[in-house]
Amino acid sequence: MALKKDKKLLILVSNDDGVFAKGLQSLIDVVKPFGQVVVVAPEKGESGMSHAISINVPLRVKKIKEEKDLTIYSTSGTPVDCVKLAINQLLDREPDIVVSGINHGSNASISVIYSGTMGAAIEACLNNIPSIGFSLVNHNSDADFEMSKVYVEKIFKNVIENGLPKGTCLNVNFPDIPLKQVNGVKVCKMTKGVWKEEYDKRTDPHKRDYYWLTGNFNNSEPNEKDTDEWALNNNYIAIVPIHTDLTNYKALEQLKKNNYEV
Amino acid sequence: MALKKDKKLLILVSNDDGVFAKGLQSLIDVVKPFGQVVVVAPEKGESGMSHAISINVPLRVKKIKEEKDLTIYSTSGTPVDCVKLAINQLLDREPDIVVSGINHGSNASISVIYSGTMGAAIEACLNNIPSIGFSLVNHNSDADFEMSKVYVEKIFKNVIENGLPKGTCLNVNFPDIPLKQVNGVKVCKMTKGVWKEEYDKRTDPHKRDYYWLTGNFNNSEPNEKDTDEWALNNNYIAIVPIHTDLTNYKALEQLKKNNYEV
Repeated sequence: MALKKDKKLLILVSNDDGVFAKGLQSLIDVVKPFGQVVVVAPEKGESGMSHAISINVPLRVKKIKEEKDLTIYSTSGTPVDCVKLAINQLLDREPDIVVSGINHGSNASISVIYSGTMGAAIEACLNNIPSIGFSLVNHNSDADFEMSKVYVEKIFKNVIENGLPKGTCLNVNFPDIPLKQVNGVKVCKMTKGVWKEEYDKRTDPHKRDYYWLTGNFNNSEPNEKDTDEWALNNNYIAIVPIHTDLTNYKALEQLKKNNYEV
Repeated sequence: MALKKDKKLLILVSNDDGVFAKGLQSLIDVVKPFGQVVVVAPEKGESGMSHAISINVPLRVKKIKEEKDLTIYSTSGTPVDCVKLAINQLLDREPDIVVSGINHGSNASISVIYSGTMGAAIEACLNNIPSIGFSLVNHNSDADFEMSKVYVEKIFKNVIENGLPKGTCLNVNFPDIPLKQVNGVKVCKMTKGVWKEEYDKRTDPHKRDYYWLTGNFNNSEPNEKDTDEWALNNNYIAIVPIHTDLTNYKALEQLKKNNYEV
């Protein structure tokens, strides 16, 4: 189902790297020609914030910029708080589409579950608003988003023209390569895998221990060509359709057989 | 598949209401007779923290109690940080089972996605450790967990005896009623619905605005008897099997048809 074409598109943009991130500006550059853009993004980096919301502290909002068809707000909240504030307080009407990113760093495979960028996209999806999270496999604050921008535009136009299946948002990851090396776009499943963490344990000047999170991703299916990790490792852009129903339907009958219903 | 019975069970306990919450103590009381218990829980309330992890700040750990078969640690991190720290730093071996809660407040339906209690359970599940999140539909810090404790024990014993399907953890919610009013236990699907937020906008003494999150849950399928919300509203304990694969498999073909693979 195409998005409404009889009026100007209202496009909400967010991210988790903060309102001044290069990836956010790259995303604004791409979508601005398509309608009225409102950015609501965290005032500071909120990487790893997943679907977190602020329950115990109130939120602050600051208007950073206002020009024709572009308004930018920062908030003291998480990416999900940003989407909630936008929908419920800052926008005059529900946005037609929500885009999040472009994240500095991969959100492929299980990283989707830790990602604030995808938290924002999933929150829009819960509200039945078409949404896309974009991420580039490069953590540097000055990463090169030129290739990403070309494909953000293609994918964004496709969602505007065709809509998305109900209850589905897109997790789009870009390999860190120049445009001419891209082999194409693949619609993928989320790779099965897990972060194997180690902590870097240190001692502070007061002789107290503290721990820094580090870790490596362990891919459980490195040779599966229909996964997002395979696509990225083979110079494809990876699109995974994400749903929000966490029920394991296959497990329902097994649990009933195991006499949970006592 | 039953959990190993040739040695004492190693049981990891966490929550999101903090290490001093009554619900956590209630859970410890129930599982302590079954093996060696290690608690790793946030030092303060971390409700609504979802699957968030601490990337940009180091973590502190404090040992609060050590007695026969019970060690309690608090951490400065999120519930997911607690599980990662436990598995990777604080425990001598991988735990046989992880239990989280008992949460003060419902985590039924879509609340599972915002829940730190379920974040901890899901993190264990990602590491292939059987896990259960327990929640009571009562937010009070002095809520009555007596009925919950009876059913925590039944469900915990069932998981020890029968294991859980691979990649699946349990989201268990208890209605806030006394034991004699319980109609039984239902294995359910996650209710479709969404939190419709409103923000309470206020002005501080310095004339600056701030926003408190408030809201109501909108149930999209109030008459579906196989959902967790229906079960709770009809005095049943609700068990939802939760999976961690966010791929919407049904959407894969539709996206391919819509020429995303350009």
